Amino acid sequence: MPTRRQFLSMVGAVGGAAVMYQAMGLMGLAQASPYTGPIELGQAPAGTKVVILGAGIAGMVSAMELRDAGYEVEVIEFREIAGGRCWTLRSGDTYEELGGFVQQVDFAEGNYFNPGPWRVPYNHYGILDYCRRLDVELEPLIQINNHAYVHSTKAFDGKPVRYREINADFRGHISDLLSKVTNQGALDEVLSEEDKENLLAGLRTFGALNNDNEYVKSNSASGRRGYERAPGGGVDGAPIPNDPLDVSTLLESGLWRHLATSEALNGSMPIFQPRGGMDMIARAMAENLGDLVTYNKRVTRIRQDENGVTVTYEDKDNGGAEVTTTADYCVCTIPFSILSQIDHDFSGPLREVINTMPYATSIKVGLEFKRRFWEEDEHIYGGTTYTDLPITQISYPSTDYLAKKPGVLLGAYSWGATAYQFSSLPPEERVAKALEYGAQIHPQYHEEFKAGVAVAWHRVPWTLGCNGQWKDKEAQYQDGVAMDRRIVCAGEHLSYLPAWMEGALLSGLDAIARLHDVAVSEAGE
Amino acid sequence: MPTRRQFLSMVGAVGGAAVMYQAMGLMGLAQASPYTGPIELGQAPAGTKVVILGAGIAGMVSAMELRDAGYEVEVIEFREIAGGRCWTLRSGDTYEELGGFVQQVDFAEGNYFNPGPWRVPYNHYGILDYCRRLDVELEPLIQINNHAYVHSTKAFDGKPVRYREINADFRGHISDLLSKVTNQGALDEVLSEEDKENLLAGLRTFGALNNDNEYVKSNSASGRRGYERAPGGGVDGAPIPNDPLDVSTLLESGLWRHLATSEALNGSMPIFQPRGGMDMIARAMAENLGDLVTYNKRVTRIRQDENGVTVTYEDKDNGGAEVTTTADYCVCTIPFSILSQIDHDFSGPLREVINTMPYATSIKVGLEFKRRFWEEDEHIYGGTTYTDLPITQISYPSTDYLAKKPGVLLGAYSWGATAYQFSSLPPEERVAKALEYGAQIHPQYHEEFKAGVAVAWHRVPWTLGCNGQWKDKEAQYQDGVAMDRRIVCAGEHLSYLPAWMEGALLSGLDAIARLHDVAVSEAGE
Repeated sequence: MPTRRQFLSMVGAVGGAAVMYQAMGLMGLAQASPYTGPIELGQAPAGTKVVILGAGIAGMVSAMELRDAGYEVEVIEFREIAGGRCWTLRSGDTYEELGGFVQQVDFAEGNYFNPGPWRVPYNHYGILDYCRRLDVELEPLIQINNHAYVHSTKAFDGKPVRYREINADFRGHISDLLSKVTNQGALDEVLSEEDKENLLAGLRTFGALNNDNEYVKSNSASGRRGYERAPGGGVDGAPIPNDPLDVSTLLESGLWRHLATSEALNGSMPIFQPRGGMDMIARAMAENLGDLVTYNKRVTRIRQDENGVTVTYEDKDNGGAEVTTTADYCVCTIPFSILSQIDHDFSGPLREVINTMPYATSIKVGLEFKRRFWEEDEHIYGGTTYTDLPITQISYPSTDYLAKKPGVLLGAYSWGATAYQFSSLPPEERVAKALEYGAQIHPQYHEEFKAGVAVAWHRVPWTLGCNGQWKDKEAQYQDGVAMDRRIVCAGEHLSYLPAWMEGALLSGLDAIARLHDVAVSEAGE
Repeated sequence: MPTRRQFLSMVGAVGGAAVMYQAMGLMGLAQASPYTGPIELGQAPAGTKVVILGAGIAGMVSAMELRDAGYEVEVIEFREIAGGRCWTLRSGDTYEELGGFVQQVDFAEGNYFNPGPWRVPYNHYGILDYCRRLDVELEPLIQINNHAYVHSTKAFDGKPVRYREINADFRGHISDLLSKVTNQGALDEVLSEEDKENLLAGLRTFGALNNDNEYVKSNSASGRRGYERAPGGGVDGAPIPNDPLDVSTLLESGLWRHLATSEALNGSMPIFQPRGGMDMIARAMAENLGDLVTYNKRVTRIRQDENGVTVTYEDKDNGGAEVTTTADYCVCTIPFSILSQIDHDFSGPLREVINTMPYATSIKVGLEFKRRFWEEDEHIYGGTTYTDLPITQISYPSTDYLAKKPGVLLGAYSWGATAYQFSSLPPEERVAKALEYGAQIHPQYHEEFKAGVAVAWHRVPWTLGCNGQWKDKEAQYQDGVAMDRRIVCAGEHLSYLPAWMEGALLSGLDAIARLHDVAVSEAGE
């Protein structure tokens, strides 16, 4: 007797996801993820070996699944640890970037900073499934915090405003405006009488309107945006509402541009982080793979012919000795920014993609403060403050709430031109810059600062960038993902979820499924 | 040299919250809470004793603060444990309700159910501060889950729909409609040209509209509501958008009524729960108070005269022996539903409030299932499904994500007439009813059910209801909170945050501040 899950998997395998959802009796037709459960490759042809270049998420997922299918697997990793961009810095860690700057991380015990991925959204079914299978403990990340700030140097004299005030007022005013024009007949041609009644009722609740469908000073509006005097207990318990922003002030502030950041599938609640740092995922995968991964090997040459793949690497553990390994197939997860500098014989169209793929840059600055003043002084527990300053955002730690000890903020997270401005500075000046900007929002910065670390992704030696971009994704994508005889490339750069671990994972699974088909087919010939 | 916090406290004490916020350089004028930090009563008159009736949140907070000010404190509690409605049921617990029904809780080790309060919102500064001071560990509760369901028996053939689909489509369609009428000139009289441009830009991001300000099938709309094929990696990585609901279908469904549940201050992210159960707060307070609390005492009589207060109680630990204790003052946190049945000599206006206060009813059903199918099959991690069924909602556990073990849902949470229907049944039938309804949303209920517990609040012996309501709050409130000679009442019922622990806490703090003023004044005479 199959379990319900097995039954649904069977239905899913035969009829696809739509039939599976129908079997569950649910609508649910708007897909959140293409991952439908653990990959089932079937049996590997006897004695077939796959060499995997890179022990990041794509490489390790590929290695685990190929091993489980019966392949002999060898994973070659440049760094001394696994994970690639799935990386966490802790007290005592040392990081040397391209150009020679060295940073020593001086955080309090237990504090950490994720320079790369920091979030696992609910719709990343693949990563979540591997966390489940590998017993990686997850905790919620507060993506949206109604009590954090939105901030513009051009609005409210540069003073931050609570997110909830802008959110409540924007919802309120647009609901009020749409109600008014509905009642004036402006929608008579597109909506029926019944539609209009439903719309008005919907806008009342959506916008916290009064019974006349107006967004005005009231306890219902203040119940969202905040009060002149909030409800309490005892003699002065009764609330006193305050005034919403008038619609012109609200619109002119431009702060409404931050109201949709948590609506996207990849950014909406719930969203998670591994307890203790993002690299807990990489560690769990590396532990699962054990000595299938060899570290400190720098790949210098990749060749393939009708008999197999030959990879040459420099063994950093052994004085840089040149070593050669062979396999029947290869999964290459080396970022194209690096691969383009390696001697390989990939075919023309793929070579063209490798050689022309730009890598996005980004900068992240982790700031540790002596106390969690954002909680103690400002009642901000996790979540993000958005600003038009070059730091873009400040994200508060979603762990150790209320703790009487130092805490680490994400003090800057920028891309593009702004990131290059940060990157051009020595790390301590990047930190100083993040502090200087952030102090415009949190004046406590000056007094409470303890330690900082700044990772500029285009200076990270093993990626030279944050994530792969495309010169022309529509035209080039299939060239990039296509298996090139015995070699297939994988990674976030070969996905439509770039810069996400889920993209790397799904790319890896797709790559090994195709590799397996080739291997089975060749073995059968 | 004062710390920043001390400085701000001083500014706050002198100039009030508004000045304090200005000193911090922040707008933040829309208050989220009236709690401004630890109460500072000053010194108690020597040898002054206060007896506190009830070791719930209001009573214990009052006891801690009065003790710290130097009062002699005695807390008399009816139950065998502290907390009152701040209560958690775990495996092995037995609960006997009014009418004699006994429930044995048969959950897996570590699983629990909070029959009473289950959430600590970020704006409940008082409770959060006591959690900080008492080292109660908090974890986020997922209030809003875009991937949970909204469900109506009258829409979509009774099939649940993902919250995100309704949310994205409602935001999209109202933004589309308002853009259209704006461009048609319908707002020309109320908005300037610049306002209109900002509004259109705002609606594009708020509603995921295209460049023509339309909400249509597109990757931007699907990036919120979900896809026909979600973005992935490898060959089939490119996303395929799906169709939004048309505006009439959306409006007719009525499911938009659930879109504002997480907008209210008391329900918006972030919101917390103590790790391990709500009673971790009560336990921490009780531990702090130690033997100042005496348990298993049923108050039978309260008297006061010019010399003090005399309380008579039945000592359930001692065969029901009648015991009398005296004090200079009394804080009475006994719910008025109970107090109205106790022999007391409170003054007329307060007596009137006590005798006429109705108590709201509510029912909560906790359901334990053998596996966390909502996570494994449906990718729902925490959060709430809303339905028009009598169960009202299903809330998924915000802890132990991904765990391969049984999990406990809040399987019903109803008020009013519906709650009475549940309450009239024996507990096992209440559980069966919650299962029967819930299975319309989660067909796995039938196969996976393990154990249940159902608490009907008007049958809870120590409260006879969920929370105090008022016959006429505006007219009666000051009579209820006023100090009656040597006795002051406190609790959630004497607040504008009824049914919340924060209301009980703020009521308690306000009560003891006034009691202290009287005590100091009388001692000085």
